[in-house]
Amino acid sequence: MPPSVLRRAESRAAVLLLSGGLDSTTMLAQATSERYDVHALTFRYGQRHEHEVEAARLIAARYRVARHAVMDIDLRAFGGSSLTGSSPIPKNRPESAIAAEIPSTYVPARNTIFLSFALGWAEVLGARDIFIGVNAVDYSGYPDCRPEYLAAFEQLATLATRSGVEGEGAIRIRAPLLHLSKREIIELGTSLGVDYSATTTCYDPDKAGAACGRCDACTLRLRGFAEGGLVDPARYVPSGGAAR
Amino acid sequence: MPPSVLRRAESRAAVLLLSGGLDSTTMLAQATSERYDVHALTFRYGQRHEHEVEAARLIAARYRVARHAVMDIDLRAFGGSSLTGSSPIPKNRPESAIAAEIPSTYVPARNTIFLSFALGWAEVLGARDIFIGVNAVDYSGYPDCRPEYLAAFEQLATLATRSGVEGEGAIRIRAPLLHLSKREIIELGTSLGVDYSATTTCYDPDKAGAACGRCDACTLRLRGFAEGGLVDPARYVPSGGAAR
Repeated sequence: MPPSVLRRAESRAAVLLLSGGLDSTTMLAQATSERYDVHALTFRYGQRHEHEVEAARLIAARYRVARHAVMDIDLRAFGGSSLTGSSPIPKNRPESAIAAEIPSTYVPARNTIFLSFALGWAEVLGARDIFIGVNAVDYSGYPDCRPEYLAAFEQLATLATRSGVEGEGAIRIRAPLLHLSKREIIELGTSLGVDYSATTTCYDPDKAGAACGRCDACTLRLRGFAEGGLVDPARYVPSGGAAR
Repeated sequence: MPPSVLRRAESRAAVLLLSGGLDSTTMLAQATSERYDVHALTFRYGQRHEHEVEAARLIAARYRVARHAVMDIDLRAFGGSSLTGSSPIPKNRPESAIAAEIPSTYVPARNTIFLSFALGWAEVLGARDIFIGVNAVDYSGYPDCRPEYLAAFEQLATLATRSGVEGEGAIRIRAPLLHLSKREIIELGTSLGVDYSATTTCYDPDKAGAACGRCDACTLRLRGFAEGGLVDPARYVPSGGAAR
């Protein structure tokens, strides 16, 4: 067996997109339990809920990742999203409305940008696995959370890199939460000992980081806990999750 | 015809990746002559030859683009390239060596990252065309300059965006220089009146911005001018291009 093949086979390095939210933290717990050598990647991209970056730092430290990189990119330059702009974040929408259309919180090409950076890091590390915590069940109508999108990125990734040219093997886009409901994700994380009080999900928290309980992200999170018969340990503003 | 289709059909907005080099400047001249409403996008990504960003600013102003955005992203965080690191830039390599392997100046996933940002901007603008000045003839062995790579990105782009979900039409990745030799690119630009003294190509210029004349990029550029029977008006260090 040539040395390069041996090295690849032994590598457990992986790049994992970590937002500090419920989904990516659950995925980190799982990847850690599978003994991946996790390189966590977080973006400060001009999101209103920038406090999630601090949550990601604490979570990455708790799981003792090999390295945690925080990249600064300013997606406010292009606009096009209530998540990076000043237009109102939708609140109190029924779940049927959340699933029916692409919401204003969609950030154009965000997952493609995040995966592209992950790809660059994976190539440098010789990692073959890139973990992304997207979800096709509760995906809120985002086009870049669909299975066919992930398959297309995986195909691109191998063509885009040295490994594709030199035949050392394909890059795998791993989305272990893709077909799980929010309830199933929470149950998986709970079985892995995830402390969900450290995670942050809200698109529009108050200055102290308390969740609003009424945006789409809070709605889906709270429903997941409720369906699992669990109490969400995150902090909510008084009129938020506690009232639900 | 519904309003959204009408708007799309009339839109001449395009996003164009502009480095300030010979290729992307030629492409800008062509897109301008075709009356595209050009939105130029340049990256300060930790490249050693950061002076190209200033060249891009001057060129964008000269062509009166609709908007010129300069994005700051720090690809030094991942390493893996002599172009963003401190290891030596290869010099005086014969062209057979340049074409034979992936050189140390390759920046992992750079074109994927650039195209991803362009995709986000195109989506916000409602633009369907993204221009990239890659070249498969003189591509220096970079995997992300190959036609099959571009086709894969185009497929991804439509799946990644609103237009893919809402059926408003596919994103096109336009690479008009893909199959041209450097000589042909220079001849095209000359016919369009491009002032090549404003463009910068060198991977390792001196502090005043004079080109080394000996890196792979200078080698290919100088050969292109020579084959066309033209003199490169760019500034070279005394021992560089002038001596060739």
